[in-house]
Amino acid sequence: MKTKKAKFITIEGTEGSGKSSVINFLKNFLEAQGFSVIVFREPGTTKIGEKIRHILLDKESSELSAHTELLLYLAARAQLIEEKLKAAFKEFDFVICDRFYDSTLVYQGIGLGLGKIVFDAVKKFSLGVNPDLTILLDADPRVGLNRIEKKDRIESRPLVFHEKLRRGFLSLAKKYPKRVKVVDAGGSLAEIYPRVEKTVCRKFKI
Amino acid sequence: MKTKKAKFITIEGTEGSGKSSVINFLKNFLEAQGFSVIVFREPGTTKIGEKIRHILLDKESSELSAHTELLLYLAARAQLIEEKLKAAFKEFDFVICDRFYDSTLVYQGIGLGLGKIVFDAVKKFSLGVNPDLTILLDADPRVGLNRIEKKDRIESRPLVFHEKLRRGFLSLAKKYPKRVKVVDAGGSLAEIYPRVEKTVCRKFKI
Repeated sequence: MKTKKAKFITIEGTEGSGKSSVINFLKNFLEAQGFSVIVFREPGTTKIGEKIRHILLDKESSELSAHTELLLYLAARAQLIEEKLKAAFKEFDFVICDRFYDSTLVYQGIGLGLGKIVFDAVKKFSLGVNPDLTILLDADPRVGLNRIEKKDRIESRPLVFHEKLRRGFLSLAKKYPKRVKVVDAGGSLAEIYPRVEKTVCRKFKI
Repeated sequence: MKTKKAKFITIEGTEGSGKSSVINFLKNFLEAQGFSVIVFREPGTTKIGEKIRHILLDKESSELSAHTELLLYLAARAQLIEEKLKAAFKEFDFVICDRFYDSTLVYQGIGLGLGKIVFDAVKKFSLGVNPDLTILLDADPRVGLNRIEKKDRIESRPLVFHEKLRRGFLSLAKKYPKRVKVVDAGGSLAEIYPRVEKTVCRKFKI
């Protein structure tokens, strides 16, 4: 993508790790520095992605097979990339995405145990798009899950599943230390925000 | 799949080539010989597959990207295989499917020009399931399309697209001559049915 101008930041973490608050903070912070910023979320953002999101998170989709779950996430992502991301990369200084392919690697690859087929498919269907920086908000999933009142299909999975995800995310940070930065998401938001700010400023020399 | 008992027949062809009529005929014919038969259709059959089918065939999904289209077809198929097909293979003598992975190879691989990525993904996400016999109903797409009154998103594509599909199907028949049998779907149903019957009887020594 020769015309890519934006820095692409993805925000990852287990359920209730504070992604939405951090993204709001980060958007405001970057805009205050004079940068143009756009935020997307996964799965969703596009009309087709929202329909796919509905199938994925609907509690009635209990019979959803693991492979189908994987393919639906990949479908929503492909749509987001081709319909929105590629254009946004040309237009904005920063593109922030609430979850991206690391979530697939962790939730479906490690959590559902699909393994290598996920890594191969993620690589193929990310269509050459890779984050410049991935902020991994690391927190005890027990604390995060307690903060969620009405749980969707994925959030309703048992605690042991979410603890496996946390270890999965940390293993990705170890595997890709230049791209994935772990931010301690314990404590109050007032404590977390400066950690995020520091990580972003260091990476992009702001 | 050691416990597979059924013979798996898939019916393929361009739009309006008479798949539904042929499937009805074939089901009745096989049942009259004393065999148990079940019919599935793609995409769909499962509750989740029908939701995916709706996204795929909805004329409002005009912004659907080619990769998303591919992944949604694969998702519906994975769900069908894991939720229905694998059980049906143990229970019935014949499992008939209205379209299967050859449609993906042809519609997305050749028609949309996605090429090799489709072949790899189809192989991976068919989860080891392969038809014993594929009946390719070959007819002039012009005739078939004229028979359809209310066209969906795929059927609405231009004639040149459907002609490309026809050539694509025929090339698969050349590539897999043992599995894919071409049946001339020109003429009246009374002429087509005996051709189908002959193909099936010869293959399974009925």
